[in-house]
Parts: sequence; C-alpha cells; structure tokens
Amino acid sequence: MISTALEEYLTAARVRQLLELDELLRFPSISTDPAHAEDVAATAAWLADHMRAVGLENVRIIPTRRHPLVYGDWLHAGADQPTLLIYGHYDVQPVDPLGQWHSAPFAPEVREGKLYARGAADDKGQTFIHLKAVEALLATEGALPVNVKFILEGEEEIGSGSLLEFVPRETDLLAADAGLVSDSHILSPEQPSLLYGLRGMWAGEVTVTGPATDLHSGSYGGVIHNPNQALAELLAALHDEDGRITVPGFYADVRPLDEAERAALAQVPYGEAEILSESGAPALWGESEYIPVERTGARPTLEINGMWGGYTGDGFKTVIPSRAGAKISCRLVPDQDPEDIGRKLTDYLQALAPSTVTVDVRAIHTGQWFITTLDAPALQAAAAAYEQVFGRAPVYTREGGGIPVVALFQQALDIPMVLMGFGLPDDNLHAPNEKLDVGNFYRGIATSIVFMQELAAPAEGGDRS
Amino acid sequence: MISTALEEYLTAARVRQLLELDELLRFPSISTDPAHAEDVAATAAWLADHMRAVGLENVRIIPTRRHPLVYGDWLHAGADQPTLLIYGHYDVQPVDPLGQWHSAPFAPEVREGKLYARGAADDKGQTFIHLKAVEALLATEGALPVNVKFILEGEEEIGSGSLLEFVPRETDLLAADAGLVSDSHILSPEQPSLLYGLRGMWAGEVTVTGPATDLHSGSYGGVIHNPNQALAELLAALHDEDGRITVPGFYADVRPLDEAERAALAQVPYGEAEILSESGAPALWGESEYIPVERTGARPTLEINGMWGGYTGDGFKTVIPSRAGAKISCRLVPDQDPEDIGRKLTDYLQALAPSTVTVDVRAIHTGQWFITTLDAPALQAAAAAYEQVFGRAPVYTREGGGIPVVALFQQALDIPMVLMGFGLPDDNLHAPNEKLDVGNFYRGIATSIVFMQELAAPAEGGDRS
Repeated sequence: MISTALEEYLTAARVRQLLELDELLRFPSISTDPAHAEDVAATAAWLADHMRAVGLENVRIIPTRRHPLVYGDWLHAGADQPTLLIYGHYDVQPVDPLGQWHSAPFAPEVREGKLYARGAADDKGQTFIHLKAVEALLATEGALPVNVKFILEGEEEIGSGSLLEFVPRETDLLAADAGLVSDSHILSPEQPSLLYGLRGMWAGEVTVTGPATDLHSGSYGGVIHNPNQALAELLAALHDEDGRITVPGFYADVRPLDEAERAALAQVPYGEAEILSESGAPALWGESEYIPVERTGARPTLEINGMWGGYTGDGFKTVIPSRAGAKISCRLVPDQDPEDIGRKLTDYLQALAPSTVTVDVRAIHTGQWFITTLDAPALQAAAAAYEQVFGRAPVYTREGGGIPVVALFQQALDIPMVLMGFGLPDDNLHAPNEKLDVGNFYRGIATSIVFMQELAAPAEGGDRS
Repeated sequence: MISTALEEYLTAARVRQLLELDELLRFPSISTDPAHAEDVAATAAWLADHMRAVGLENVRIIPTRRHPLVYGDWLHAGADQPTLLIYGHYDVQPVDPLGQWHSAPFAPEVREGKLYARGAADDKGQTFIHLKAVEALLATEGALPVNVKFILEGEEEIGSGSLLEFVPRETDLLAADAGLVSDSHILSPEQPSLLYGLRGMWAGEVTVTGPATDLHSGSYGGVIHNPNQALAELLAALHDEDGRITVPGFYADVRPLDEAERAALAQVPYGEAEILSESGAPALWGESEYIPVERTGARPTLEINGMWGGYTGDGFKTVIPSRAGAKISCRLVPDQDPEDIGRKLTDYLQALAPSTVTVDVRAIHTGQWFITTLDAPALQAAAAAYEQVFGRAPVYTREGGGIPVVALFQQALDIPMVLMGFGLPDDNLHAPNEKLDVGNFYRGIATSIVFMQELAAPAEGGDRS
C-alpha cells in the first residue's frame, strides 16, 4: 500500500524523475554496432552512479568480453524476508530508418503524454522504474520490505551473450527467491496483463551465391539463375498458403494448447481490431485455425527480418548479383529446441536449393522459450500490485518477443520469474518513434513499490489488501 | 587496306593512344548519380577538345536537361561518298561493390594485356577507337574515305533520355547513309562476330507495403504478413520451374524463331562451357527448349536486379519492415511492346497481391528492340573489315544487353545500323573489374579504318580486297 508519505514523495519527485530518465535515454547505447561500444560503457557507468545515489550498495560494473554488466543490492530486510532479483537491460536497438522518426531517437521528447526516444520502453525506461521505487522507499521509510538485487546488462538486443555466461557462474551472488523483469507491455492502462510465457528463438542468415561476380543481366539473363530470384524462391517456399511453416518437422515438438489454456487466452481483449489499428496493415495474416493472441504468443513463427541483393540505389542497374541474402528468425514455443529447429531449417533450405546456386545458412543466435505456473506466489503478488495501482486485475498472456535471459534465470537460479510490463502494445519497439506512456512510468513506480510490499512475508506486511 | 604509312603511324602511336584513353577513363562519369553530374560534364568537355585535336570539325557540346551531347564531323569526302554516323556514350555504370575491384575503378591499370577501369569497354574505350581511326587517316592521308559524323551521349546507362528527344528533332544534322555503334563484344579475338539483333527493355520497381511502420517481429509475427515474405512470394511466382515467365500474355507477341535462324545461331561457338567458365556459376539455368545463345539473345527474360527490405546491417534485428521492394527488368524481343509488357506485369503482380499488403509497380525505363537484315551493304563492309584485321569472317549473333538508341537511329534516320563490337564476353560490364583487351583496342582502330574504306563508293576504293 502506498502510504501518505510515499505518495507525497512520489508526487514531489515526478518532474525530477522524468528529467533523470531523459538523461539516461540520451546515451546511444546501440549494442550491435561496434561504433557505439563507448556509449554502451558510458551508460553502464551512469547507471552505477545512479544506483549508488538511490541507496543501493555493493554497486559495481562487471567487465565482460563485450558490454559490461552492472550489479547492486540492498540486503537489510532480514533473513526471514525473500530476496528479489531485478533484471533490466540498458542497451537499445539500432535506429534506422532514421528518416521516419518525428524527433531524434536520442533526444527524448514528450508529446501528448508520451515520452519518445529509443529505449524509452525497451528497456531503459522500464528498468529505471524499479530504481525510482527503491529510491522512494529508502527515502521515506529508510528500508525496503524485501531484500533486493539488481543485475543490468548491455547485450540484450544482441543475444545476452555475456549474461548467459555470467549467471550460471555466479549463482551465489544472484541467489534469490523470485525474479522480476520489466521488458514487456500490458494490454492498456485500463487492462493490465501478466505474461506467463515467452517464446524462444533461432536467428540466422541465409546466403545464396550464383555467379562468381556480378554479371550484366542483359548478357547473362536467361542462362544464369539470378541469386535474387533463387533466394525469393527459397523464402517463398517457407510458408504454405495458410501461413503454416513448411520446414519438415518444424511443429513436431510443439506442445499442443489444451482447452483450458485456449479458453484463458480467448479472454484477452486483444484481437483483429486492435492489431489492425496498431499496425496499420490492410488485413491480418496467419494460421486461420488459431486466434491472434495464440498466433503471436503460443504458436511458433518464422520471419524474414531482412533481405538484400543486387542494386538498390537510385535509378536502375541491369545486374545479376553474385549473392543475395536474408536474415531469418524463428520464434519457438514449448517444447521446441532452438538447435534442432536451426538444423531442420538448414536441411530444408539445402534440400530446396537448386543446382544452379549454392546456399549457406549461418546461425546468429538461439534463445530458450520460457513458461511459468499461474499459481506462483510471486506472480500473485504482482497481480495484486497491478490491481491496487491500475484498479483492475490483470489478464494472463503468452507473448512473442523473447527475453532469452528469463529462461536462464529460471533454470540457473531455480526461481519463479515475474514479467511485470509497463509498456503498451503500440510503443514501436525496434521501430521508429519508440515511446513510453508517461502515466505508465509513474504507475510503474507505484506498482513496483506495492509488489515489493506484497512479496514481503506476512509478518512484515500486516496491512496487505 | 592498311597502307604502310598507316601501319607505321599506328605502330608509333600505340603508347600515346593508351595514355590518352587512360586520361579519358579517369573521369568518374556515373550518369545515374547526381553527385557526379560535374564529372559527366567534364568528360564531355575533354572529348570535345579531343575531337578537335584529331581533326574533326564543327565540334560542339550540346546542353540537355541532364547530361550534354557532343557532336563533331568531317564532311569533305565528296557528295558521291556515303556519310557514316558514329555513336558512342561516355557515361558509365556505378562501381559498387567497390570492395571487389582489384584496382580502383577510375585509376586504370594494365594487367596481363588487359586495361582495367570502369568504362574501359562500356563504352569509353570502344568510342575512343573510332576517334583514333579518324586521327590516323587524317594524319597520314589528309582525308577520310567517307563523310563522318560523331554523336556522343552521357545518358546511355540511364536510358538515353536526352538523345531520344534530340535525334527525331535533328534529323538534318544527323542525316547519314549508315550508322556505327561500338558498344558490344565479339566472341573472341579468334572469332569475331556481328550483332544483328538487340533486345528491348521494360524496367521498373515493385514496392510491397504492409504495416504503416516497422514492427517488432516477436510481437506481430504470425498475424502480420511480412512485406519481405510477401515480396519473395510475388517474385518467386514470376517464373515456372522451367525458367519460363508466368506473366499472362508475356510471350503472346514473341516472333517465333524460324529454322534458318535457329540453324545460324547454332553455329555460334558460345555455349554452356563458355558461360560457366566466364560466370563461375555452378550450373546453367533457363528455358531448356532453347540453346544458350537463343536464351540470351532471341528470347525475352525477366530479371530481379535488386531486392531489399528490413534490417540488413551487422548482427540482427527482429523487425517486420513496413515495406520491401525490388527492381525488375525485362529484356524484350520482336514483336513485344515494352509498354504492353509493363502493363501485363503490373496487372499480374496486382492480381497476385494478397489482401494483406498493397503492391505498387512503377516503370523506370523502356527501350525498343532492334533487328537488322544480314545483307545490308554496311553490314557486309563491317564483315570484310573484321575478316581483314582479325583474319577470320565473323559469325552473326543476336544479343541481350540493349542499346536503346540503336532502334531510334534506325527508325528516325532510316539507316542501317552496324554494331561493331571490340569487347569480349568476360569484360565484366556493369560489374567490378571491367576491362578492355589492349590487343582488341589496337585491332579495333585498324578495323574502323578498313570499315570506312570498305564503306566508300567503289570509284574511290579501287584497291578493295
């Protein structure tokens, strides 16, 4: 419950909190681009300073082979109180196509109650919410209701390589009773939601090579299989007309959805109308025997994230390129194995490849899916916190955007993971004009505070509502 | 016939001629790129100066809405002698991918008897051959055997827009009895060849638009038709398994090859082995009922020259792009009409387009096909010139790379056009490491001289061999 002192503190702090977040969002911490490595490091340093400033202890920057981790804790709630591990990431996606942004991606701007910047929702803004919750509790009550550890990474957008090595090695440092991740969204401020399942991933690159060098299409068209065309033919063969993936064995290990789960998912008030409105697409697409929330959360997918070949500049150039390529990612569900799916996709593409070209498939990244039980106490504490702050109980959802480390924390630390999102479905993640609803930022701080109170052992939480 | 005086002149001039060509090739006259407009203009100025230096008269740079034309003539052979119109272009293709060049594209380098530079073969080097022939004749004999007009353009690689307007307007200035174009290749120095047919063209751009903005593929994959995938599906549907184009009516106006022509084309010593060796492709592709020289010269084709969509940088980005696109060019044969083919392709793509995306097709360029008769006197003069200089009679071929202005000259001026190539099939036109065989450069100058002699009326050419 938010006490009067807390409420006064939070109200007085609103402008300052937003200005601090503005400062954090100005770092262009694009983890995939080596040119931004120093920006990523500077972001970690800023966060470490800020963690000390809000009252966290043992704060340190942990170097890795690529981008640093940041750790900090506050462990004075007592041995009878649970320990909460809070995860977040401070790296961001690239910003192209830059021309489609209405304000510069690293110069945050508030328009109509929304804060526009790369990383506003994914994930600097959502991570910052919990630092502000800790600050408010320590400033007004001098203590947190539970023990808290923070672990922040700078490689989430490139596969969390360093964290995936760090967590299994540092299980003592990270030991906790529950994990908290805010890197997702709720359905709307009027209808909060709790994610209980996330998909895994296989991502890679397909390259089709034909002639040894680019050729004049006027001289060689008709006798040389154009790699652009061969690639298009391969990519077009990966789905059937109903949107099902045609890779042999792709669905072999998919755990069927039972009727109870389908009934629960059917309650989610998010369907064709909402998706069409958010996306601006002319019509929905996909497996017609599943409803949209099943297709985006509980069914596996295969997407062509990028495609290139030949001349793409101004005017035209009559060329047959030597090579064409595509980036492909598959979202995976229980019990699909990413390595197995990568092998099946590779085998299928090789089997489809005509003798007129050579096809190379290279894996870039894999990530495990995650699923949790609906009756875990930490999840119920989160549900209670949402209900108190948002005024409505959350619905339970499974979603598509993977957070590879969630499965890792659950497995390596044997703890239930709570995915407490404060973004909205139209936040333009990974796209131009990424935003965070400013109202949700403040509601998020309150929800984080109540969640810690709810998570505390009953002896300490006498006034639980 | 090359007189002793001519032979001595040509031998003494060899190094100087190559150094002059080096100077011409150093201009980065990329016509499609607005950033190179001044370089294109500087090339025209250099050529005008050079035309005056070799003895041409009435030399002038003719401004256009884009890149200038260059005109010059020598009209003192007498009214009883024919007038020859020589065409060439001094603009060049872009140079990407730059990393695949072994020497800088605009810093010519001779390696193993080949001159490497953008434009070496297409078409600065071949145009320069005729200027050197004129120079040698005027320097040694004080006159040319025929009247000669030169018209050079700087927009061939972008569709010859200005020349297409200029020629029909200036038929008096350009009036001639025969036309000469050197912008093609012979089969080999041991087997010269004469092009009697060229294909026309329709080129355009296809854009597929799905969602209004780029979306996170983890959140929207499975319900939104990815424009990359939709484009791949459209492009893959443009050919059947035998390499035939599936656009309805595409072949309706194709003039069937008669048996005599198929028999003549079957004599061309250029087939699977040569194409595989030149291209480095693992296998040939295309319509199996036609031999390779028919597929590259006498059959229409449809090529995907460029293709793009989504994230194509380092690493990966889980995005569903708002749009994806492709550049397509069709090579056309008698009696296909470029506008009609563009309409049929557009209609077919629109008919194939699913309701989940919108498809836009935009024409960029069209060009007419060209075909000439084998018994035209100018063509026979060219055949005699090749035979004298190369020591072997040429074979007759039809080819793929269109030269849009050839059909224009033939139609607007009502003259037979001779396509006298001195390039070779592996010259890497429009690709990295474009080259011109240095031996063919010198043989070209001699062939041009003998051609003018052969073209002259018998009264003047008593020693015709």
